[in-house]
Amino acid sequence: MAQNGTESTSTYLYDPTILSQLESSAFHAEYKDGVKPLNPGENFKLRPLCLEDFDKGYLQLLGQLTSVGEVTKEQFEDRFNKMKACDDSYYVTVIEDTSVNQVIGSATLVKEQKFIHHCSARARVEDVVVSDVYRGKQLGKVLVDVLVALGKKLNCYKISLECKDHNVKFYKIFKFEATHGQNYMQLRFFD
Amino acid sequence: MAQNGTESTSTYLYDPTILSQLESSAFHAEYKDGVKPLNPGENFKLRPLCLEDFDKGYLQLLGQLTSVGEVTKEQFEDRFNKMKACDDSYYVTVIEDTSVNQVIGSATLVKEQKFIHHCSARARVEDVVVSDVYRGKQLGKVLVDVLVALGKKLNCYKISLECKDHNVKFYKIFKFEATHGQNYMQLRFFD
Repeated sequence: MAQNGTESTSTYLYDPTILSQLESSAFHAEYKDGVKPLNPGENFKLRPLCLEDFDKGYLQLLGQLTSVGEVTKEQFEDRFNKMKACDDSYYVTVIEDTSVNQVIGSATLVKEQKFIHHCSARARVEDVVVSDVYRGKQLGKVLVDVLVALGKKLNCYKISLECKDHNVKFYKIFKFEATHGQNYMQLRFFD
Repeated sequence: MAQNGTESTSTYLYDPTILSQLESSAFHAEYKDGVKPLNPGENFKLRPLCLEDFDKGYLQLLGQLTSVGEVTKEQFEDRFNKMKACDDSYYVTVIEDTSVNQVIGSATLVKEQKFIHHCSARARVEDVVVSDVYRGKQLGKVLVDVLVALGKKLNCYKISLECKDHNVKFYKIFKFEATHGQNYMQLRFFD
């Protein structure tokens, strides 16, 4: 795969070629201003999370979503490597603003192996966040659109997510449906 | 770990000693007739899924939950080994009726690695099923109680599940709560 100078030294969480293999027919959303899922704008690069993103503000970005706490570079790398060691499971996908070398959007597709549905797998959308100074640029839409296409490409039988009331309309863009009579329940051990 | 003759030749999906380390204070449900989570009755053995469970009716049991399809022994073993290769991720927990060498209950805890919450992890309860001829023996309660204790033991910051309306009351036994304003949405690619 052709890579520019910066990326050739990067360690990807997953093989980036799977992103470039996604066909335009796999996307659901409509875009304006020339934005495309795989080409979301000048200086905006969509790619897998890299080990080097610790130094590109990745954890600070997640901090806009929820509590992250103090995480050292070693702890970040350990977690990254643990995810990567789980083959075909963690598809953390980010957008970098290459003009400032900062990760400014991220969304995760997690693939869960099953025995049911002929030893199939299900996918989940997790931890969707776009930096507050980059909102309104359709980047959240790009990230979710790409994850849905990725989930299908990875042969998952379904993809799901949990979201707050005010985001239901947004996720309907991608054909997610609230399933009648299906409840999400949780038990929190700590924050 | 002490094992009986049968188990010593079994290949566990995860280390069974973590089950025996769960303390009684970790369980939430009340039981009658002397049933205990780690000792759910005469001839009932709670343990991790084993590679040998293909021949003990495991897939037929899952077939009572949803579509499984025709799965060969080789496909089952491939999926089992793929799960096992994902360290600290798949905790498929079963109950065997040792008097007939059949798996008669199963529930899965899946652990998802995170960067958020100080590189923590979240747990999910999936694919809970008890054989229809063994219902009313508190075995579903045993399985979920064990998974919740396991999720906490594994340092997950939360545990969650999706369930139908008529099961909400059941899951409240274990302190699961329906989160107000939180929606579960899904998109099905195939059945």
